[in-house]
Amino acid sequence: MSIRVGVVGFRGYSGAELARILERHPHVQPVLMEHRSDSGGGAQPLNWTGPHVIDCTPEVVQKESLAVVFLATPAEVSMELAPAFLDAGARVVDLSGAFRLGTAEAYKRWYGAEHTSLKWLADAVYGLPEFCRQRIPTARLVANPGCYPTAANLAIRPLLEAGAIDRTAGIVCDAKSGVSGAGRKPTLKTSFCEVTDNFSAYAILNHRHVPEVLMTSGLEEHEFSFTAQLIPIDRGILETIYFRGKQVRSAEDLISIYLERYKAEAFLRIYPAGQVPDLHAVARTNFCDIGVVYDAASGRGVVVAAIDNLTKGAAGMAVQNMNLMLGFAETEGLSQ
Amino acid sequence: MSIRVGVVGFRGYSGAELARILERHPHVQPVLMEHRSDSGGGAQPLNWTGPHVIDCTPEVVQKESLAVVFLATPAEVSMELAPAFLDAGARVVDLSGAFRLGTAEAYKRWYGAEHTSLKWLADAVYGLPEFCRQRIPTARLVANPGCYPTAANLAIRPLLEAGAIDRTAGIVCDAKSGVSGAGRKPTLKTSFCEVTDNFSAYAILNHRHVPEVLMTSGLEEHEFSFTAQLIPIDRGILETIYFRGKQVRSAEDLISIYLERYKAEAFLRIYPAGQVPDLHAVARTNFCDIGVVYDAASGRGVVVAAIDNLTKGAAGMAVQNMNLMLGFAETEGLSQ
Amino acid sequence: MSIRVGVVGFRGYSGAELARILERHPHVQPVLMEHRSDSGGGAQPLNWTGPHVIDCTPEVVQKESLAVVFLATPAEVSMELAPAFLDAGARVVDLSGAFRLGTAEAYKRWYGAEHTSLKWLADAVYGLPEFCRQRIPTARLVANPGCYPTAANLAIRPLLEAGAIDRTAGIVCDAKSGVSGAGRKPTLKTSFCEVTDNFSAYAILNHRHVPEVLMTSGLEEHEFSFTAQLIPIDRGILETIYFRGKQVRSAEDLISIYLERYKAEAFLRIYPAGQVPDLHAVARTNFCDIGVVYDAASGRGVVVAAIDNLTKGAAGMAVQNMNLMLGFAETEGLSQ
Amino acid sequence: MSIRVGVVGFRGYSGAELARILERHPHVQPVLMEHRSDSGGGAQPLNWTGPHVIDCTPEVVQKESLAVVFLATPAEVSMELAPAFLDAGARVVDLSGAFRLGTAEAYKRWYGAEHTSLKWLADAVYGLPEFCRQRIPTARLVANPGCYPTAANLAIRPLLEAGAIDRTAGIVCDAKSGVSGAGRKPTLKTSFCEVTDNFSAYAILNHRHVPEVLMTSGLEEHEFSFTAQLIPIDRGILETIYFRGKQVRSAEDLISIYLERYKAEAFLRIYPAGQVPDLHAVARTNFCDIGVVYDAASGRGVVVAAIDNLTKGAAGMAVQNMNLMLGFAETEGLSQ
Repeated sequence: MSIRVGVVGFRGYSGAELARILERHPHVQPVLMEHRSDSGGGAQPLNWTGPHVIDCTPEVVQKESLAVVFLATPAEVSMELAPAFLDAGARVVDLSGAFRLGTAEAYKRWYGAEHTSLKWLADAVYGLPEFCRQRIPTARLVANPGCYPTAANLAIRPLLEAGAIDRTAGIVCDAKSGVSGAGRKPTLKTSFCEVTDNFSAYAILNHRHVPEVLMTSGLEEHEFSFTAQLIPIDRGILETIYFRGKQVRSAEDLISIYLERYKAEAFLRIYPAGQVPDLHAVARTNFCDIGVVYDAASGRGVVVAAIDNLTKGAAGMAVQNMNLMLGFAETEGLSQ
Repeated sequence: MSIRVGVVGFRGYSGAELARILERHPHVQPVLMEHRSDSGGGAQPLNWTGPHVIDCTPEVVQKESLAVVFLATPAEVSMELAPAFLDAGARVVDLSGAFRLGTAEAYKRWYGAEHTSLKWLADAVYGLPEFCRQRIPTARLVANPGCYPTAANLAIRPLLEAGAIDRTAGIVCDAKSGVSGAGRKPTLKTSFCEVTDNFSAYAILNHRHVPEVLMTSGLEEHEFSFTAQLIPIDRGILETIYFRGKQVRSAEDLISIYLERYKAEAFLRIYPAGQVPDLHAVARTNFCDIGVVYDAASGRGVVVAAIDNLTKGAAGMAVQNMNLMLGFAETEGLSQ
Repeated sequence: MSIRVGVVGFRGYSGAELARILERHPHVQPVLMEHRSDSGGGAQPLNWTGPHVIDCTPEVVQKESLAVVFLATPAEVSMELAPAFLDAGARVVDLSGAFRLGTAEAYKRWYGAEHTSLKWLADAVYGLPEFCRQRIPTARLVANPGCYPTAANLAIRPLLEAGAIDRTAGIVCDAKSGVSGAGRKPTLKTSFCEVTDNFSAYAILNHRHVPEVLMTSGLEEHEFSFTAQLIPIDRGILETIYFRGKQVRSAEDLISIYLERYKAEAFLRIYPAGQVPDLHAVARTNFCDIGVVYDAASGRGVVVAAIDNLTKGAAGMAVQNMNLMLGFAETEGLSQ
Repeated sequence: MSIRVGVVGFRGYSGAELARILERHPHVQPVLMEHRSDSGGGAQPLNWTGPHVIDCTPEVVQKESLAVVFLATPAEVSMELAPAFLDAGARVVDLSGAFRLGTAEAYKRWYGAEHTSLKWLADAVYGLPEFCRQRIPTARLVANPGCYPTAANLAIRPLLEAGAIDRTAGIVCDAKSGVSGAGRKPTLKTSFCEVTDNFSAYAILNHRHVPEVLMTSGLEEHEFSFTAQLIPIDRGILETIYFRGKQVRSAEDLISIYLERYKAEAFLRIYPAGQVPDLHAVARTNFCDIGVVYDAASGRGVVVAAIDNLTKGAAGMAVQNMNLMLGFAETEGLSQ
């Protein structure tokens, strides 16, 4: 008998992707939970059984014996629902930023609001399996990482750990994302005519995902320059990362660091020297692809990292975390 | 009576834009010159007079008394046509990279071929009016700047001149361009299905436009990291430029430098602190828009510069140069 | 001294296009009128004079001596403003559907609301110059046509007038439009992620633009099947129109009808037999391009008509009407 | 042990989709066959096992004991390979148009070339399971249907069979497709800058897919008007079909016909009256979705049918056919 898991926010882009992945997962059965803030659904064919939708309450969580509930909801909704569902006995994977930053102070600074669930904020485990795998299996509440920091941390931390980056020169991360990262709520900034034939930068040096990179990489804020930018496409994140190498002789040196660090990882693919991934390479997969260019004479290094923001950057990572929490193979349900 | 000017390569994207701009120019009359390498044209309405097309030979240049010929052609074609047309008495604005780099060595390194017109290579004037305005009026051959370097130089050089950039930390220029920059010749890389829903980096640290930035800004190669990237749109270039400030107290300091340096310029628009341009702001205009974000505590600075690669980055700039060469107001024919 | 004209709704897509066209018009000076329902504007460069914006009241219309006011507003706003501005002495070109349908009953049926300005509804002149040119010069209130009917009427009416269509077989008009036709207000249906990689039909057999085709062409509703569809692009309308020919021997017969009917028209371009326009052919122009395919053996005819929905389908047409109203050449300000 | 099947043309868009679907199929193991006409592949990560690629010869077909070989190749290549592989003992599913039309005359008319394999042309079974299911299990050579006819036939034939369409009035099928339908070979017509922001019609009344509709539906050519059009998206086909109803009282009558005809089908979804599918509804699925609008007063009917041209219109259908040929459940490997 399969284990039942709940999905809140299933009409949003991350939540819908989550529902799609879980449908195909061999060991769990997803149930969709209708939240009061959900927008309406689309057309429903007559000769087709739509998904079963249940109420989004702690009572239902208990009654349906949901082992895990995924919250693909805004931070303020997650702060409300997570404690209630945890108290009702479920474990929670939260895809919002509500429980990622560890302290109320950090939350206040970057999200501009008071945190209302300090107990769970302290208990939450940051769900980046490639670097925090040990604590996830026993976590009650997993804070699924942000999309931008996922690519950035997977690209930067191995090189920092290996001492291959001259931190005094700083690191630049120029990040580009598809529009689904902004969520499904209609706004002028995400209207078709405003986005198409356009490209725009936002939250320069000040994006709320920055602290997740600092926490995981150990960089100081003054060492890390980050710009988020909107590509006129649906999904995908590509980050171009610039740094100065330290005792690095060639791109191959950097590639060796990645290959060694990620030799046991299922979702990290490393490219030959001089080749870099594009977004098509990772679309609708849980892969993070990494490529390196290096100029030995000057020490200038460039790393390009690509993920699908809705998969490795959200729903796929959430299922990866669930697999760890429930004792399944980490790749279950996530092969392309 | 208006002055006649020729356009070679009028079926390419830059050449077609050039023909469109020149059609509206009050003081010149464009004639289109069919080159053997041109691809076929599109449908021609029955009740409409198409453009007059003439042969692309030195004899025709002479016979038609063309004052200026624009070459919107590949570098190897420009190297062949420019000397012939100059000898035939016309002045030339070349939109290719053939005559930009000053020396045969530089051309060989970045374009991978021997230069075949050394005399004219030495005589050519680099046509970036905002920094080389004096020599353009009397130039016989103007090398119209590359699209990427135009935005980069307009954004970087004022800050370097003012000593506001700590060069020891290097400058990163992360550049993104629409696909028209790659020309009209069909290739797999510019096929619709390969570009749509995608974003890709190319020529990392090694783009042939890099030397134009070094020449104009005075930066050394090891100080300048440049990545070119393809946005799934037709036209537009946005460059995100990262640096460390030197004795800069705020974004306003940087903005003042730009306002002062560009106070007499018609095509440079500077944004209030913290605001940056997107591509819609400059689409189909000859403007270069510049915005600044600065973190005084750490000295991290970010400049975003946007142009239309076919206008300020090619055809508009070419007309700006022609206006200078022929003694017209520099903005003639270029108001939006 | 140039004549002053007002633009209400200048931040919407049609209104912004209108402002752009009027900026270049040699004989009028546009002033932008801020309406309470306008959304906020974008960034404003520091070293640039923004457009002058005035209040949107009858008093201002009078004080500024506006000869014509353009209303690029929703029908309910136009119904409120048009009478007030007409009473204040201005003439009005209304781009909404408020004054197009002639009777309160028709307005009620297709717009689902009571008309509140019956007097002006009766007086308004439908502004399709190619078919109603005589009444426009003296009109106080011109109802600028809808975007879909403009292409449909220009394509269908000449063939109907010439008796070249077998009406018993009915006419099918399969229409496709860019997203700007839906206006600038953010909605889920016009969100980037919903539109991109998509194509959708709406208002099948029931679009509120249908009655404008019936009025102008003389077709009965049961003879005309119309579907509106959304293309994932910013602007442009292409209509594919199917009919059975009556005593038509070839495509050339149909083409001759168009050439004869439109021989004095500046904005109608007719293609050779078997060739049809695409949207690039008319983008940012005031042209309506028409091409024909005909199978003589079976009498099946197909006409493809293309316009830019923001130009010939809205703002360009509005300026064409203004030119007629103010006695200028009809093409003034509208050459590409 | 799983059955081995070959894929020729795996770098094309349909072939790549086929390889992706077969990778997940529980009962077969795909092997990729490199054909001399294949273009080069993309980057290959260092820590990743690429697909096994073998030669594309009859000897290899025999040696590898391939049960089925899929040909995702141009018609002229399929005409050469299919006979050789059939003689080598494999069964073949051909995705090209080479074996669909039954006679050499039809092939000559619509494909403009002589057919070189008359024996197999006569033996081939048209692989539209919903209408030809009986003959597929024993077929040696299955001609996989064209993308446009698949949607058209699934939408039109049930209504014709039920006598619900007035054939004297003719049927119009206005079809729109994503660009992947044109294949991966670079051409000017499928270049990014030519397609983006555009929409264009081609092969009006004369598309080579027309005879497949006539064959399957029983319509005469003069009764069927078909236009193919290019949407600026990667994948998806939407067809808007116009007809006059015969003894039809309402949309529900038409819907009942579909529901009854397709009650045993796994891939046909029928919408409630007045609702129609868009392309997002079927993207990356093997579904054909159908919706109906009907005006009882005039008898005007509109059906909208949507498929993914690479799935139900090519690779998914091919796997559906393979499942029937090899005795698997028809849906195996094809659930979303």
